Order: sequence, then C-alpha cells, then structure tokens
Amino acid sequence: MELSEDELTAAIVRVLSGAGPEVIVGPGDDAAVLAAGGGELVLTADALIEGVHFDLGITSARDLGYKAIVVSVSDIAAMGASPHAALVTLALRADLGAAWVIELYGGMRQACDEHALWLVGGDLSRAGAIGISVTVTGEVAPGRAVTRAGATPGDLIAVTGALGASAAGLRVARSGRVRSDLDRTLLRAHVRPVARVGEGAVLTRHGATAMMDVSDGLAMDLGRLARASGAGARLRLVDVPVAGGATIADALGGGEDYELLVALPGLEALEAAAAELREAYGTPLTAVGEIVAGEGVTAVEPTGAERPLAPEGWDHFRA
Amino acid sequence: MELSEDELTAAIVRVLSGAGPEVIVGPGDDAAVLAAGGGELVLTADALIEGVHFDLGITSARDLGYKAIVVSVSDIAAMGASPHAALVTLALRADLGAAWVIELYGGMRQACDEHALWLVGGDLSRAGAIGISVTVTGEVAPGRAVTRAGATPGDLIAVTGALGASAAGLRVARSGRVRSDLDRTLLRAHVRPVARVGEGAVLTRHGATAMMDVSDGLAMDLGRLARASGAGARLRLVDVPVAGGATIADALGGGEDYELLVALPGLEALEAAAAELREAYGTPLTAVGEIVAGEGVTAVEPTGAERPLAPEGWDHFRA
Repeated sequence: MELSEDELTAAIVRVLSGAGPEVIVGPGDDAAVLAAGGGELVLTADALIEGVHFDLGITSARDLGYKAIVVSVSDIAAMGASPHAALVTLALRADLGAAWVIELYGGMRQACDEHALWLVGGDLSRAGAIGISVTVTGEVAPGRAVTRAGATPGDLIAVTGALGASAAGLRVARSGRVRSDLDRTLLRAHVRPVARVGEGAVLTRHGATAMMDVSDGLAMDLGRLARASGAGARLRLVDVPVAGGATIADALGGGEDYELLVALPGLEALEAAAAELREAYGTPLTAVGEIVAGEGVTAVEPTGAERPLAPEGWDHFRA
Repeated sequence: MELSEDELTAAIVRVLSGAGPEVIVGPGDDAAVLAAGGGELVLTADALIEGVHFDLGITSARDLGYKAIVVSVSDIAAMGASPHAALVTLALRADLGAAWVIELYGGMRQACDEHALWLVGGDLSRAGAIGISVTVTGEVAPGRAVTRAGATPGDLIAVTGALGASAAGLRVARSGRVRSDLDRTLLRAHVRPVARVGEGAVLTRHGATAMMDVSDGLAMDLGRLARASGAGARLRLVDVPVAGGATIADALGGGEDYELLVALPGLEALEAAAAELREAYGTPLTAVGEIVAGEGVTAVEPTGAERPLAPEGWDHFRA
C-alpha cells in the first residue's frame, strides 16, 4: 500500500466529512463524541489481528481477551471519559476449540470488571486468522471531552507512568525466556496493559488542552497531537520517563504502552495534576516538553542539540 | 469446532452473565440496550470476513461498504430503534490500494446517508484477508426496545417483504451471468440489501411482542425467536412470501434478506400494521404462522401435514 496509515486515515476522513451538529468529534481522534440525550456519548473501536498485533505462540487466550478490551478502554480514557459498555466481534479459526473461546471471553470479562464496564454483545464468525474488534462506549459531561486538537504554543507536554515497557516485554516474550522479576514485570506490561481511566478524568479536571493515549510510540503520537493542534512540539529526550528494562528507543518507537500524553496550560496546572495523580493512583506525571509554533516534533538531545524527530512509531502500512 | 454458533454464543453469554441494572438487554439478541442519560442506547456489531461473507470476485468495494453498514443497521431496526452512529474497524490486505479503500468508504458513506446515521470513526490494520467490523449505535424511547424474547402462544408471526432474493442473487453473482432484469433485481437484493428501519418503528408501535431481522434464513431465525421467547412456532410454508426468482429453500435457508420477522398480539394488530407499512413504505407484511406452547418450529406443509423444521439456515460453525 502506497500510503501510510495516517495518510489513508486523512483520505477517509475527507470521504466522511459533512457530519451534522450532533457529531461533536468525528473521525481521526482517539474516540468520536456525539450529542445523545442530555449528555455526550463517546465511541471508539479497535481491532487486534493475529499475526499483526499478536501471536498465539506468546499470548494466552485470557491475556489476549484482557488486552483487546483495554486497548479500546484506553481510547475512552484519553478523551477524559468513563467507559460504559463493550461490544466484540470475533473472527475465529475453525481449529480453535470452545474452551479457547471461553478463556478469551474470560479475559475480556476480567478487563471489563476491572475497568467498570459491561460487555453487552457482539458477533462470531469463522476466518483464516483470528480477528478481534472491540467497540467501547463511554460517557462524558457536555463539552468536557478532550481531543488531540486543543493544544496551543506554550502548553506543557507530559506523560503518565513510564514508556517502553510493552516493547521490552514483547522482546522478553519472543525470546521465550523469563529469567528475572524484571522480565516478568516487562512481560506483564505487554500482556496486561492498564488503561488510565481515572488519570484521564483527573487530567481533564486540571485543564488538559489536548490528550491522547500512547499506542504507537511517543514520537509518532506526539507528532499526531501536535499536528491535530496545528502546532509543533519540543521533546526533551532526557526527561522522557523510560520504564526500567526498556530503552529510549522502546519509549519513542515501541508503542502499546497506553499511557496518556497530555498538554496542560502551564506549570501550575501540571504540578496540581501530578500531585493528585500521585496521591489518588500512585501514577507519576512527567513533563517532557512543550507545544511550540510551527510544525513537527523537535527532539532536544541531552547536549542541548536539537534535531527533527522522525515518527519511528508503529505504522501498520509502512512497517 | 465442535459447537454450533448458537451453542457457542450460549456458552459465552454464561461467561458474561451478571450485568447490572443499566444493562436492559444483554448479549444474545439482535442488539444490546443500555440505560444512558434519559433514554436508551442500542448497540450492535457485526463483522464481514473475506472468503466467509463475501468474495471480491463478485462484490465491488462500493457494494461491500454499503452492505457492511446495512447489516448492522438492520439489527438496530429489529429492536424498533433508530440508528445514530457507525464505527468501522477495517483489516486490509497490503495489496489493496488506497483507491479501493476510498471506494469502500464511499459505499459506507452512501448507506449511512440513506439510513440517516453518521460514520464517526474506527480503526485500520493490515491482515491476510479483509475483515470489516461495523458497530452501529441507536436510540429508542425507554422501555420500547423489542427483543426476541417477548412472544407468547397465540401471537401471530409475520415477515416484511419477500424472502430468498439474496440467496438467489448470490447464485446469479456466482454464475457470472446476468441475463435478465430478474437476474439484475436478485443481484441487487444480494449486494444492496435494505434495512427496514421505518418498518421496525411501525411494528413496534403496533405492539410487536418479539422481533428480529432475518439474516440466517427464516427456519433458523424463527427457531431463535421461539427459543428466546420460551415457546414453539408453527410456520405455514404455503404462506411464506418467496421473492420472484427465488425458491422456498432460499427463503427458509438462504439468509441475508434483512427482512423483519415479528410476533404481533393478534389479527387486529397485524392488519393495522400491514396497512400502515403498505401505505408508508410500500412494504408488504405477510402472516406466516403463530407462536405455540412447546418448543421448536413445526412446518405446516401445503397438504396440512406437519413436520419439525430443521434449522437449515446459515451456521458459521457447521457450514
């Protein structure tokens, strides 16, 4: 395919343009937002495809089900919304037994229980490879959804938690050797990611101007946030919180961390949000840069040297 | 796989049991219904998989996109609800160009425009075969959603439109020869099905006790409606409205007609609904049998002889 995922998405968004006033946030953000009744309905959908997003050689049915739910819940969290219900369409290879399918749903059920949402329906079909598509609905107070598009120059950029653990955990899984507690921690980060639902609500309350989850690596996702906001960004590499056992390359290009990337209107908001996140959830919030006029992401090296940062994240169409 | 689709679905529903009071209709019906704000939110998801549900040798990208939306809108219609928004996750083969994808979305956009809903988001990935999963949300007034489970002995069973055209149209498509206007009509029924949204609302207003769309053939789907209602059904084969160019076998076992199968509380309701459907939409409503005590579907032959009707519909796991 000659286009990147982002270019193809942009072309699709043009086909779909012209939505009515009910559509508060349309295609292209973490989730869509619609006026519904007295509130706002938040909607997101993601698919996990065997051989692209997972490999049964290194993932159990239960972990796979768990992760399939979390990936979409994370998009709801990134809007500052609360998850409400999940729907699953499942394409299954004929050689998988009923026990495998029940394990998969058991993992989904567990993720739904932990993130306080209902798994209410879906659809089953046969296929040559496993495909799991999960839609999650959420709720947000009118006007409170946080998109990728609201950041302005001068806003500070921060991330929750630490980055790169999922990519490092995938290396552990592929090696087939779990040799230490650190390996176990990294593996768990890969197979059992956490969606930052409570954190998203706190960041929204502290005035987040733009927010998204880090699903494709910080380099690519910060580029998306800056582009959606019509601005550029400076990223201080030395400040990027890299998970223990991971590398800065994992943090910038690995993906699947599901931490929140947020723009906040100043140091006071950032410090207040950080204090509340630490107290309420034990989750760090780390300032890593700022929104600037212009376009693209500029990396600031430890030496102070600056260079354009290539979007080395996970691109399904160029990988 | 050792279980049928219905048996596996039943096992999954058990894993997911224990939903809270917000969940008005859970897994196992055409769509789920949740309390949300002041109203009720209706949710459904369906997947179309290349090689299982469609074949690019006989389906254009535009027709495929159109149908992918209609399949899920039909589930919303079958609850007596109005569609609101659609989300699409798309798994694409790497050899498909951007032009093909834009055509596909063009067909989805057309179906959304015709059925008055917004296509608000989704997700793209690579895969070895094309998979399209569509979630549609809808709205219904509190307490007005019509499930499969409310029919009681004595209710009359009716279907909208005529059945079997889609299966006959698939034969035309596979033959590669469109030789007559009838062939063209059948082909169109297969590639451009219609979701009976307005009809579902009319049937609800006339007191429908149970309703579903006929996606897997009348034999299987009537069996599902009767089972969900804890009852049996008698089906008068001579009264089944078979589309011109189709056979009774197409109507009973073909599937993908997306007509509505409805139970109504008596002849007066049925005649009033039929009159309104004819006048408002030009859509026939045909009485084909009744709900009875017991279980299973009994076919009444033209001779008056009765026999149990096997569920010869489309079962993804036994086909």
